[in-house]
Amino acid sequence: MTGRPKPKREIRLNAFSMNAVGHQSPGLWRHPRDRSAEFNRLGYWMELAKTLEAGLFDGLFLADVLGAYDVYGGSPDAALRHGTQIPSNDPSLLVPAMAAATTHLGFGVTSNLSYEPAFPFARRMSTLDHLTDGRVGWNVVTGYLDSAARAAGLARQRGHDERYAVAEEYMDVVYSLWEGSWDDDAVVRDRARGVFTEPSRVRPARYRGAHVSVDAVHLSQPSPQRTPVLYQAGSSPAGRVFAARHAECVFVSGPSARAIAPRVADIRRLAAEAGRDPAAITIFALATVVTGPTDAAAEAKLADYRRYVSHEGALTLMSGWTGVDFSSYGLDQTVTHVRTEAGRSAMENITRADPSRVWTVREVAEHVGVGGVGPVFVGAPSTVADLMESWIAATGVDGFNLAAAVAPESFEDVAEHVVPELQRRGRYKRAYAPGTLREKLTGGGPRLPARHPAAGFRTLPVEAVE
Amino acid sequence: MTGRPKPKREIRLNAFSMNAVGHQSPGLWRHPRDRSAEFNRLGYWMELAKTLEAGLFDGLFLADVLGAYDVYGGSPDAALRHGTQIPSNDPSLLVPAMAAATTHLGFGVTSNLSYEPAFPFARRMSTLDHLTDGRVGWNVVTGYLDSAARAAGLARQRGHDERYAVAEEYMDVVYSLWEGSWDDDAVVRDRARGVFTEPSRVRPARYRGAHVSVDAVHLSQPSPQRTPVLYQAGSSPAGRVFAARHAECVFVSGPSARAIAPRVADIRRLAAEAGRDPAAITIFALATVVTGPTDAAAEAKLADYRRYVSHEGALTLMSGWTGVDFSSYGLDQTVTHVRTEAGRSAMENITRADPSRVWTVREVAEHVGVGGVGPVFVGAPSTVADLMESWIAATGVDGFNLAAAVAPESFEDVAEHVVPELQRRGRYKRAYAPGTLREKLTGGGPRLPARHPAAGFRTLPVEAVE
Repeated sequence: MTGRPKPKREIRLNAFSMNAVGHQSPGLWRHPRDRSAEFNRLGYWMELAKTLEAGLFDGLFLADVLGAYDVYGGSPDAALRHGTQIPSNDPSLLVPAMAAATTHLGFGVTSNLSYEPAFPFARRMSTLDHLTDGRVGWNVVTGYLDSAARAAGLARQRGHDERYAVAEEYMDVVYSLWEGSWDDDAVVRDRARGVFTEPSRVRPARYRGAHVSVDAVHLSQPSPQRTPVLYQAGSSPAGRVFAARHAECVFVSGPSARAIAPRVADIRRLAAEAGRDPAAITIFALATVVTGPTDAAAEAKLADYRRYVSHEGALTLMSGWTGVDFSSYGLDQTVTHVRTEAGRSAMENITRADPSRVWTVREVAEHVGVGGVGPVFVGAPSTVADLMESWIAATGVDGFNLAAAVAPESFEDVAEHVVPELQRRGRYKRAYAPGTLREKLTGGGPRLPARHPAAGFRTLPVEAVE
Repeated sequence: MTGRPKPKREIRLNAFSMNAVGHQSPGLWRHPRDRSAEFNRLGYWMELAKTLEAGLFDGLFLADVLGAYDVYGGSPDAALRHGTQIPSNDPSLLVPAMAAATTHLGFGVTSNLSYEPAFPFARRMSTLDHLTDGRVGWNVVTGYLDSAARAAGLARQRGHDERYAVAEEYMDVVYSLWEGSWDDDAVVRDRARGVFTEPSRVRPARYRGAHVSVDAVHLSQPSPQRTPVLYQAGSSPAGRVFAARHAECVFVSGPSARAIAPRVADIRRLAAEAGRDPAAITIFALATVVTGPTDAAAEAKLADYRRYVSHEGALTLMSGWTGVDFSSYGLDQTVTHVRTEAGRSAMENITRADPSRVWTVREVAEHVGVGGVGPVFVGAPSTVADLMESWIAATGVDGFNLAAAVAPESFEDVAEHVVPELQRRGRYKRAYAPGTLREKLTGGGPRLPARHPAAGFRTLPVEAVE
């Protein structure tokens, strides 16, 4: 079912960035037109948000990693030297200023539940949902770097499956706060009676888990979406089960439709098994667009970009993602010699794409150097649109999570040239739908549907607040 | 020395608010002109920031409490009913949008170090310092509500003195990250050599305390101020020692100059003992201004405001601050019958003001009902200016932390009417000084001076990043 083309279904575009230099294109900060080193400036982000809204992007998705990439060479030196996702700042603090500069654009914020206590985190997301009028999403991550655990004063991170056990408890706690603590009609603002909130319509979220606990009234009143739109990107078995249970949007990444298709089918199958509507999960595939007036001009632009790729920067990312120290391999060794560890494996994302192909370490670095593990859609706008349509037909994804090769140029190019082509084909909206990010993405209401596990927390045990 | 008038010294004004309804004037949300219930909207805050910048306020200071006021009556019911600092949202997320709407205004953000892990918190503050061009401050609090501890899944909060022991470790950790991890010249952005950051100029902050630990490179590159301007408001003995050691700005609160003066002297004395310049600590006294064209008009305005005071709301605040459940006392009982617990005691702030005066619970509620425990400066602009000058002469404070009776009206009134009067007297700036918030406040550089304990963390152990 999921692999079948769905003609004329709207293609969704999401911009993928990070409050950091470079992000998914290591070395490209050296390109003369790249402005990503301006990430410390509000103006850079407000301008980008306006560009994306002009291109009717559904959202800007902000990645985050709470630690330095220090697997390569056993130190953060290479990451520092190449600006590989360090320096990097907090993503959530970009949202209010971008929200002030836009009306419709959604904002996906990555937050690592292993290191952010649930109670203040839940309030931060509610605050963002209020301030943006319901345009916020949360990318649920559990982390993959031991450096983040050491930053928190721990020896190392929890094991992979334990992280997902913690994540399940964490979700229960934040659902209790977001969905159950306040009734919709709790805030009455009755000046005559002197009642701001009816206490009988508010109750504490009470949860005692092995890892996460809470006993408190949520501090924020109900926000437009209550639970922010939930994104997830984990590709491991535990990650897919988690995504199928919780996620409304899933990010997948791999270099070919062939690599992506079975994962998409698996996510939808698991969602159905979890009692959810599999079609209601919006799946975005990582991709990078390089376009120009003609195919030749686009290819020339990509060739120019490639001159700035940093092999070492790319392998620093790959080492962090896979846990394999690529500094100990020669560039001409083939990656079949590298056995990645169990769990999340970006390496396998690549090597599985075409089992008959043998990749050298150099080829991996060059592939990752522009747009990470995703494909580069290169060509005139019509060629890029063709590629997008064929990927969607072959994989069943709903759209693309577009990284930048050169920022913000790559986003501007899509907004100005590719979007009009998709509109001509009837595959892209001509205006935003009204309402919250959830309403725009799903066509449903502003709140999670009744079949979502969060709905189970809407009726907390009825008891007096005491 | 500190009690002596310092003629013509500039009076500093800080606006005191909270990402909540009401804040320091319980019940006043019912006033027809009060707009504080719009705290969920970006526009409300951006407009307020512009008003304050037009009035050349040094900063907007955002209080925060990570829990509900549930001492009164043993439940949060009264706090909910009267909108007593609940609902409330995260303060830090207001700053980026207000920064985009202003150029000079500073922003003080309250963050409770008992419940926010040091590593991601330090990055959030660095992010704000970057995005605001060095206009951010941090109000260091350790909390006073058990409800905040329960929200974090704990049975109760740590003991008062232990909280300050934790605070000392926490400061060491964040100083290490802010001051020591990156050299000023670490980021080189050398396109030709392909070096974004010189790894030899970055090192991990390594600290293992009994309560707080870190072993990580800070993720943000050096921001304009590195350590944000440090605010503190603790009035207990342990709180004053902490403030004297760390704080650059101190908030004091009490209903009379007589109550404030010895505390100001004590803070400056302790700072001198800690090896710091006592005059370099900027001390703000809590106050609320109600002004009008004439004294009579101002008094009439205050009388109108007082009609909306909520006694129960005020006692809900007092109960939270003192740990005493005021619901068990009659309004006509005298507060000399109430023995407050050791530690921070807002009650003593009031009763010490004039030891000969006997306060009833009702009088306390009425006092707290407009502007919390601070005084109300009521009168024509010249009267308000007289009161400010005499308070400064009598106490040695540097200025005022101004709460609103009716928001944002109280702030607008000060900016439009009191500030011009202070300017005529030569006691108020006519333009902002250039530079960061620290430069504006101290006349010094953007970084903490060499005598501050943070400076001791500028040279972390020299070792290879490994």
